[in-house]
Amino acid sequence: MIKENYPSKLLTEAVEQFKKLPGIGERTALRLALFLLRQKKEEALNFGSVIINYIENIKFCKTCHNLSDEEICPICSSPKRDKNTICIVENIKDVMSVENTQQYNGLYHVLGGIISPMEGIGPSDISIDSLIKRVSENEAKEIILALSATMEGDTTNYYIFRKLKSYPVKITAIARGVSFGDEIEYTDEITLGRSILNRTPFESPVS
Amino acid sequence: MIKENYPSKLLTEAVEQFKKLPGIGERTALRLALFLLRQKKEEALNFGSVIINYIENIKFCKTCHNLSDEEICPICSSPKRDKNTICIVENIKDVMSVENTQQYNGLYHVLGGIISPMEGIGPSDISIDSLIKRVSENEAKEIILALSATMEGDTTNYYIFRKLKSYPVKITAIARGVSFGDEIEYTDEITLGRSILNRTPFESPVS
Repeated sequence: MIKENYPSKLLTEAVEQFKKLPGIGERTALRLALFLLRQKKEEALNFGSVIINYIENIKFCKTCHNLSDEEICPICSSPKRDKNTICIVENIKDVMSVENTQQYNGLYHVLGGIISPMEGIGPSDISIDSLIKRVSENEAKEIILALSATMEGDTTNYYIFRKLKSYPVKITAIARGVSFGDEIEYTDEITLGRSILNRTPFESPVS
Repeated sequence: MIKENYPSKLLTEAVEQFKKLPGIGERTALRLALFLLRQKKEEALNFGSVIINYIENIKFCKTCHNLSDEEICPICSSPKRDKNTICIVENIKDVMSVENTQQYNGLYHVLGGIISPMEGIGPSDISIDSLIKRVSENEAKEIILALSATMEGDTTNYYIFRKLKSYPVKITAIARGVSFGDEIEYTDEITLGRSILNRTPFESPVS
C-alpha cells in the first residue's frame, strides 16, 4: 500500500487535486498523476489548459439555464425548435437524456435542483422564478414536467403547477408506468396501480 | 444512456480530456466535468493550474531518476541516507513502496521499465547505462536488485548482474519466499521450492 510519502511536492499537489474529484481515491489519483507524466508534455499541459478554458468560458443559457458556449444556448436560439413547448428538467444531464430520445423538439427549462426539505432546498433555491417570468412573458402553450418520479419530484411538480395554473398554459407531466422490458410480476404496486389508472388506448405497433 | 450530444463545445472538450485518463469512460468523464462546474470557480481553475504547474516543473533526479522538485532528489541529497547501497527498482511507485516499509536507508536507481522482449523493451530503453556509470564512479558497496518476481524481472536482474559483476560491488536481490499471511497449502510450487532452497537460520521473534 502506497501512502502519502511522495518524493515531490508538485506530485503531492497534483495527487491532492485529483483526489478532490468524486470517486477518486489516493491510489487512483496517484495513477492519474503519473499517467499524465508519461504522456507527451504538450498533451499533458493541454489537459490542464482545456479544463481552465472550460471553467473560464462556459456559460449558463440566460433563458433556460442549460450549459452553453454563448449567452443563449443552441436549443433556445435554434429556429427549428418549437417555441410553444417548455420541458422542465432538474439538471443539465436530464436535458441530454431527453435530447437523446430524439422524441422532443421543444425548449427546456433547467431548474438546477428539486425542492427537497430534507436537504434544505426550497423553491427559492431553484430556477422557478425565471420559469414563471418566461411563461408570463412569452408564447409557451405547453409546459411538460419531466422530473424524477420521487417524492421530491412530485413536490416540485405540484409547486410549479400551483404557480403556473393561473397562466393560460397547458401543464402536462411525462407518463409514468411500467418501464420497457419490465415484467409485471416484479413491478412495484404503486407503478402498476398508476399504470392501470393511466391506461392509454391500444395502438397497433405496425400502422 | 447519455451519448456525445453535449450542449457546449467547451464541455465536449473537457469531457474528451477526462476520457484520455486511464479507467475513465464517457459517463465518468461527464460526471467529473460537471462536478468541476459545481465547485467554486477559483477551486476549479486551481485544479487546472496545479496540473499545469506539476507537468511544467517536475523533474527527474539526475542521479537516480526518481521524481523530484529539484535537479537532485531529496533521497540522493540527504546526508542521512547510506550512500553505500543502491536499490534498483523498476519505477517511481516502487521507490514509494520500499520507502513505506521504513526498512531501507540507502539510495535508489529507477530503471524506468524492465527488459521485456515481448513488449520490445531492450536494455538500452531503460536506465542501465547510467547505473553502470554510477557504480563505476562512486563509492557504492552494495547493489540490491528489487525488481518484480516475473520472467522480465529475472531477465533484467541477470542482465544487470552480468554488467556489474566486474565491478568491486556486492550484488544482492530481495528475498523471495512465502508471503506474510500465505498458507503453505495454497503457495505455488516454485515459490515453495525456492523458499526451501533459500531457507534462513530461524531467529526467535522476541530477542
